[in-house]
Amino acid sequence: MSVYRVLIDANDEKGLVHKVSGIFYNNGLNIISNSEFVDNESNKFFMRSVVEGDIELKKLQKLLVDAMPNSANINVIEPKDKNIVIMATKEMHALGDILVRHEAGELEANILAVISNYSDLKSFVEKFDIPFIAVSHEGASRDEHEQKILEELAKFSDIDYIVLAKYMRILTPEFVKAYENKIINIHHSFLPAFIGANPYKQAYERGVKIIGATSHFVNNNLDEGPIIAQEVIHVNHAYGWRDMQKSGKDVEKVVLSRALKLALEDRIFVYANKTVIF
Amino acid sequence: MSVYRVLIDANDEKGLVHKVSGIFYNNGLNIISNSEFVDNESNKFFMRSVVEGDIELKKLQKLLVDAMPNSANINVIEPKDKNIVIMATKEMHALGDILVRHEAGELEANILAVISNYSDLKSFVEKFDIPFIAVSHEGASRDEHEQKILEELAKFSDIDYIVLAKYMRILTPEFVKAYENKIINIHHSFLPAFIGANPYKQAYERGVKIIGATSHFVNNNLDEGPIIAQEVIHVNHAYGWRDMQKSGKDVEKVVLSRALKLALEDRIFVYANKTVIF
Amino acid sequence: MSVYRVLIDANDEKGLVHKVSGIFYNNGLNIISNSEFVDNESNKFFMRSVVEGDIELKKLQKLLVDAMPNSANINVIEPKDKNIVIMATKEMHALGDILVRHEAGELEANILAVISNYSDLKSFVEKFDIPFIAVSHEGASRDEHEQKILEELAKFSDIDYIVLAKYMRILTPEFVKAYENKIINIHHSFLPAFIGANPYKQAYERGVKIIGATSHFVNNNLDEGPIIAQEVIHVNHAYGWRDMQKSGKDVEKVVLSRALKLALEDRIFVYANKTVIF
Amino acid sequence: MSVYRVLIDANDEKGLVHKVSGIFYNNGLNIISNSEFVDNESNKFFMRSVVEGDIELKKLQKLLVDAMPNSANINVIEPKDKNIVIMATKEMHALGDILVRHEAGELEANILAVISNYSDLKSFVEKFDIPFIAVSHEGASRDEHEQKILEELAKFSDIDYIVLAKYMRILTPEFVKAYENKIINIHHSFLPAFIGANPYKQAYERGVKIIGATSHFVNNNLDEGPIIAQEVIHVNHAYGWRDMQKSGKDVEKVVLSRALKLALEDRIFVYANKTVIF
Repeated sequence: MSVYRVLIDANDEKGLVHKVSGIFYNNGLNIISNSEFVDNESNKFFMRSVVEGDIELKKLQKLLVDAMPNSANINVIEPKDKNIVIMATKEMHALGDILVRHEAGELEANILAVISNYSDLKSFVEKFDIPFIAVSHEGASRDEHEQKILEELAKFSDIDYIVLAKYMRILTPEFVKAYENKIINIHHSFLPAFIGANPYKQAYERGVKIIGATSHFVNNNLDEGPIIAQEVIHVNHAYGWRDMQKSGKDVEKVVLSRALKLALEDRIFVYANKTVIF
Repeated sequence: MSVYRVLIDANDEKGLVHKVSGIFYNNGLNIISNSEFVDNESNKFFMRSVVEGDIELKKLQKLLVDAMPNSANINVIEPKDKNIVIMATKEMHALGDILVRHEAGELEANILAVISNYSDLKSFVEKFDIPFIAVSHEGASRDEHEQKILEELAKFSDIDYIVLAKYMRILTPEFVKAYENKIINIHHSFLPAFIGANPYKQAYERGVKIIGATSHFVNNNLDEGPIIAQEVIHVNHAYGWRDMQKSGKDVEKVVLSRALKLALEDRIFVYANKTVIF
Repeated sequence: MSVYRVLIDANDEKGLVHKVSGIFYNNGLNIISNSEFVDNESNKFFMRSVVEGDIELKKLQKLLVDAMPNSANINVIEPKDKNIVIMATKEMHALGDILVRHEAGELEANILAVISNYSDLKSFVEKFDIPFIAVSHEGASRDEHEQKILEELAKFSDIDYIVLAKYMRILTPEFVKAYENKIINIHHSFLPAFIGANPYKQAYERGVKIIGATSHFVNNNLDEGPIIAQEVIHVNHAYGWRDMQKSGKDVEKVVLSRALKLALEDRIFVYANKTVIF
Repeated sequence: MSVYRVLIDANDEKGLVHKVSGIFYNNGLNIISNSEFVDNESNKFFMRSVVEGDIELKKLQKLLVDAMPNSANINVIEPKDKNIVIMATKEMHALGDILVRHEAGELEANILAVISNYSDLKSFVEKFDIPFIAVSHEGASRDEHEQKILEELAKFSDIDYIVLAKYMRILTPEFVKAYENKIINIHHSFLPAFIGANPYKQAYERGVKIIGATSHFVNNNLDEGPIIAQEVIHVNHAYGWRDMQKSGKDVEKVVLSRALKLALEDRIFVYANKTVIF
């Protein structure tokens, strides 16, 4: 008995659910859960099923490819721990939340390494028996620095996701392109408000009554990639920007871990710079 | 072109989605939205589809009945305004929220009447050109009072839902039985905390930091019917119980209106004293 | 026995609380509630007290003025219904929420009139026995239209607040200046995200997972006045922009009514384009 | 220059704020923040000030004691790391959150030790260079087991708080009495709903749409001590009780850490089985 996650997106047409469910039925597969969504504006169909039964992954994939229209993207995935690399700078909270969840067995992930442009987090990370790689940016151009990081990443044969756990440097388009829709960032504001540097200070200056955090895939426009998860907390006049920053940490780590779990469980479709999440 | 809401629940077995989607496909119906859920513990299947096409309601109903197992409940519903009666006592906020939504065209409902055991709300209700029926409980036993209300209700040929918008009297089992799963109540606490009288006072005495409201179908056990919707707000030590009561009104009206909309849009299944909501 | 709300702001210096509480104590006033805040960045002191006792308003005002530094603004206010005018366009939900609250006695306000640039809401407003004034913008320049509204407003001897309950036109600097910090607007987004027209469409295009509403005083920069209250709700990929718009209405009305209550209860200080709220 | 936290509660009478602020003023102390609350029902006054200046703690304490009525409790506290012991059983999430915060310097605390009735968490705790003490309950009566724990606790000269980070055993009245208002527990439900064992299962059976967690001081009645903090999350029909349990962990750890921070910052008054929190 195998369990598979089946992810399909396609141009919508009549009969898609019937065809997919027919393949499941005719092959004796049990549907554990099933979600569909049609974006009527773009006429796009999305489906995620978890099925259980006696069939080989490749056979199920082939049956679905043969039955679906040419426009379809079909992914049959066997649940297993995904390989992730975490990038951080100096802050411990978002990174620490992921490390403890990993230690507690909450995440379907192998953490291959933590990479940082500083050494501050080295002893913390190594407590968890996870390799820590310091790649200093000092004295290096942005391109040189990233090149060194890319070299470190290249040592790992297979990386499913790169998690930016408060990595405070902007990535170049080349870097982003190399890991398209695989880089998950946490931005410490409720995007699209307060794009860019020091959002808590911006929020404080504007006098907002709510602050938030946004986790998103990284694309080439700063803080403008597809949003995966957002959360907020209420603040008031008594919050200086450093108080917002402190309180905001709790939201940041919650949102980043939530987004990471959604990715690890293959629950996210990216489409038109947005996400469909089941 | 007709639009139908199709609601199915049944003992789960393989192939249910395939069969239903086959009927949709073979009759040229377009699936506008589709949700399924299997309660693995009870092995129960739930499905709600909205479909569009050229088919008579009775024919679609028959096709589904013939294809589904005997355990299935099948409801093909043509969306139209449902008939509701609102019962209230003296408070205006929850009632008023429904009346304004109705006036604004937000609700798929005809409000047949508002019934109260006091006359206080008469002029308010009549502003909205809705019949107000006062049925005083004074000098009457509980049974006599309810009998009079039942007589008033009997004058309406078809009642889909009775909404208790802060109706502050307990209904007898006979009354409840007459409108099973058709009576929607708002209880001014986060059930099951603070069942019964004056929940805000109970909440104040207990020193809680959050208060809430619960909308549920009414059954014979006080405040123990299937929960439809809940919402909460934060409070602190500065809230006396009357402050909680005032602030709670905002939650009460939001939750009751939300539950009512779910019911009017045929989004609720009741099962095992719980609700499945699509 | 009189009850007064005492609002003081001043440049901070040692002893302010002691001086104010001394005046209360020496005049036998009972402190019902008391809040202070010092903005350390700007060195500004804010205080709001509710006191009860036998003293004339003018005397208390004079005692405070004499004791406080020259920088101080001192307001001793006797709680009574404030005069408000509501401006709306065609939507009923935010306006309706205020009208029902007013009817239920929840607001410390006289509603002098509702002014709209359309006649759609006339019969709805008049149900509540409140004057409805239609001032059409058709065929008139922005200045001409506003001039007519200003003439209508001038007929009322005393207006404490103008509430823009989804008034969908931009006010000129002249209008705003005439009612500085007296115009309360509801913007249908979580400001500063999605300033300007059709924020729900902007939010949909951006693929956000949370939408919100912001109530703020109006100043000359579009949607950039001091924020009074904000609230949000979660949305997901299944929300088209019209769904966001529908769900957003519930947040809009909650936030606007909350801001209005804060203003009516003299709980808001405006300072540096921000609000201090007790 | 010293900074002190001044906590005062007393039977309310006129002039208390004036007297306290007079002592601050006459001794040249700068008020950094100040909060007061009068519980009108019990006629009880609460005040927490943070002041800065050149005065000895004992002198300030004496001045306040001399000026305040006999009913007053007066605490002048110099901010410094408090000594805490954490008790846990097998779960890592709430404990881990505290350990990471401690490591990140977010908590004003020394963690003296982690005590557990199992050894499962030993290697995890020791990563953080914190002593782990296993005190097995196997083969021991409840009293014998607690006696051993009390002996371990007695080895520490000064314990400010004991944090039950999912310690899954009930403490005896003797134990609780020994550390009155010093034991902070996290209960995995929104109290007072679902007191006792397996609240997530209870919540699932009841079909609630919101689950929560409650942090409270422990007293002799199970889950009935003064509540410090509560938080909730929305759930739906698709959540089995194990899903609730998983999602609930995120709330549990947030609420426990929030309560702990409030305690460490001397922000909590306990009164009438409730808390006043500034």
